[in-house]
Amino acid sequence: MEHYLGMDLGGTDVKMGVVDSNGTIVVKQSYPTPAGLAGDKLADYFAECMRKTAAAAGLRLETLAAAGIGAPGLVNTTNGILDFVTNIPSLNDYPLGPQMAKRLNIPVAVDNDVNAMVLAELYYGAARSYRNIVALTVGTGVGGGLIFNGQLYRGSSFGAGEIGHMSIETNGPLCNCGNYGCLERYIGREAIVARFDALYRHKKLPSSIDRHLEQGAITPRAIAMAAAEGDELSLFVMDEIGRYLGNGLATIVNILNPELIVIGGGIANAGELLLEPARREMFRRAAVMPARMVKVVQAKFLNDAGILGAASLAREGSDRTD
Amino acid sequence: MEHYLGMDLGGTDVKMGVVDSNGTIVVKQSYPTPAGLAGDKLADYFAECMRKTAAAAGLRLETLAAAGIGAPGLVNTTNGILDFVTNIPSLNDYPLGPQMAKRLNIPVAVDNDVNAMVLAELYYGAARSYRNIVALTVGTGVGGGLIFNGQLYRGSSFGAGEIGHMSIETNGPLCNCGNYGCLERYIGREAIVARFDALYRHKKLPSSIDRHLEQGAITPRAIAMAAAEGDELSLFVMDEIGRYLGNGLATIVNILNPELIVIGGGIANAGELLLEPARREMFRRAAVMPARMVKVVQAKFLNDAGILGAASLAREGSDRTD
Repeated sequence: MEHYLGMDLGGTDVKMGVVDSNGTIVVKQSYPTPAGLAGDKLADYFAECMRKTAAAAGLRLETLAAAGIGAPGLVNTTNGILDFVTNIPSLNDYPLGPQMAKRLNIPVAVDNDVNAMVLAELYYGAARSYRNIVALTVGTGVGGGLIFNGQLYRGSSFGAGEIGHMSIETNGPLCNCGNYGCLERYIGREAIVARFDALYRHKKLPSSIDRHLEQGAITPRAIAMAAAEGDELSLFVMDEIGRYLGNGLATIVNILNPELIVIGGGIANAGELLLEPARREMFRRAAVMPARMVKVVQAKFLNDAGILGAASLAREGSDRTD
Repeated sequence: MEHYLGMDLGGTDVKMGVVDSNGTIVVKQSYPTPAGLAGDKLADYFAECMRKTAAAAGLRLETLAAAGIGAPGLVNTTNGILDFVTNIPSLNDYPLGPQMAKRLNIPVAVDNDVNAMVLAELYYGAARSYRNIVALTVGTGVGGGLIFNGQLYRGSSFGAGEIGHMSIETNGPLCNCGNYGCLERYIGREAIVARFDALYRHKKLPSSIDRHLEQGAITPRAIAMAAAEGDELSLFVMDEIGRYLGNGLATIVNILNPELIVIGGGIANAGELLLEPARREMFRRAAVMPARMVKVVQAKFLNDAGILGAASLAREGSDRTD
């Protein structure tokens, strides 16, 4: 059986795992993202962490089929250069792909973490056997991954999938991206938390979210967890988010007519509490035939999406060069 | 040189042409769409018209490489059945593809007319040498055709490309499709004419559109023509439409990161008067990198898009079965 190493690059942690070709995580580890290192030194560090992770799985790194790296931001998958990395500016414009390949002596694929996530769902998760798939991750931002005719579609400059930046209100609130009324401004972390917080402070509905707070803070995950226990305010907010999401899904369905929409990210922990209102709104808005045929489901991998996704990039890269 | 027959199926007219493999229209003809015929009788009629058209080009129909039919509506390109035909309800659910092939003894491809249009631009027009293309036709409705990695993308149930039904205002005006605030409600024929008419009646700006009226009526084409002559009100409306269009394009660019966007349909006759404000708004809203790389251009074929598109379907069908 082949093994892949997956590395999920984050601003504070680097998560790594060895994944076999059935999608089983053999071992996983987490390392801090060192703030003081940049460029080649940082690549050396990643290589060292990868060796340790492979060793923890009882394998020599050189015996792995390939490594994959998922990064938040814009990645040129042709030359392996990180064009723009959210939260790790020291890696901007760095050729991480070729530099890691030189250090590891195995093929290395680098890509955006949402592309990684949709591949994990395609290979091992909720999207197996589907060919036209749209994945959305609803977290701090709202990202998207697109599979058309069974192939990852990256767009013409690796920028496809920015579903969070469809404008759903022409003159809506300004978004960080420069657009107005972006979907992300309604269902992204900041919007959800601000909305919950306002309703909570004004005691619009009863809530016992306190036990789910994360380090004292309201988070989308906390709202999802409270909603699952029947918390009234959380359920109300979840329904609101679900309907905004459904509005975005209707546009996706009308334009792309996918078979499957997979929803991941922190808020996806709410499962049907989010998906049910989203589907209802999507169906109310989208054209009947594509709306009837599309399935809207929760991602199979929520906590392990990063590692499995990165390992899936390794597999996809190997398939492409075959 | 190979020749293709293209047939553009409309509610009042059926336009036909013989097109060579360079995209030159050798001959074109127009026949009325008979209101009294349906099913097999209508197919007989189409076959007879096609024979006449081929004869007018000095060719026997059987010597043509293939025929293509572009229809407004939803077409199952696998079995050649018209699932839903706008304006010709008698053809709904009719297997026009196989029935025509039986009558003509050459391969027959049937598809949506906007898919036909984008193929014509890909093979012979503004989209040659591009691989990721979004085409929009802005006419009575607002349709879209999608080319990803050089291939027409039809979606999972032949419904992809309904770009006119992206909602740009969550609680905007109700659309015929059941959604709210669809792009089509802002830039489709009805919206443009109503907007122009209101401003005209209230004398908001001077206008000398009269000489361009079509049978006494304000049409998008008339507004485009008047704008080209510097008509103040027409220019104002064209700028407004352009900005709404640009808003829609920004979402397309953010989600699909195409190399090229081709704009066709009646209003596209305005050329830069429409495209310039559209580009400006698109650039103001879309992510910088995909916005910088995309070109937004007028379709090469405006009046002959139907025939050339249908002939392109014939060519694409032949390529697929090769």
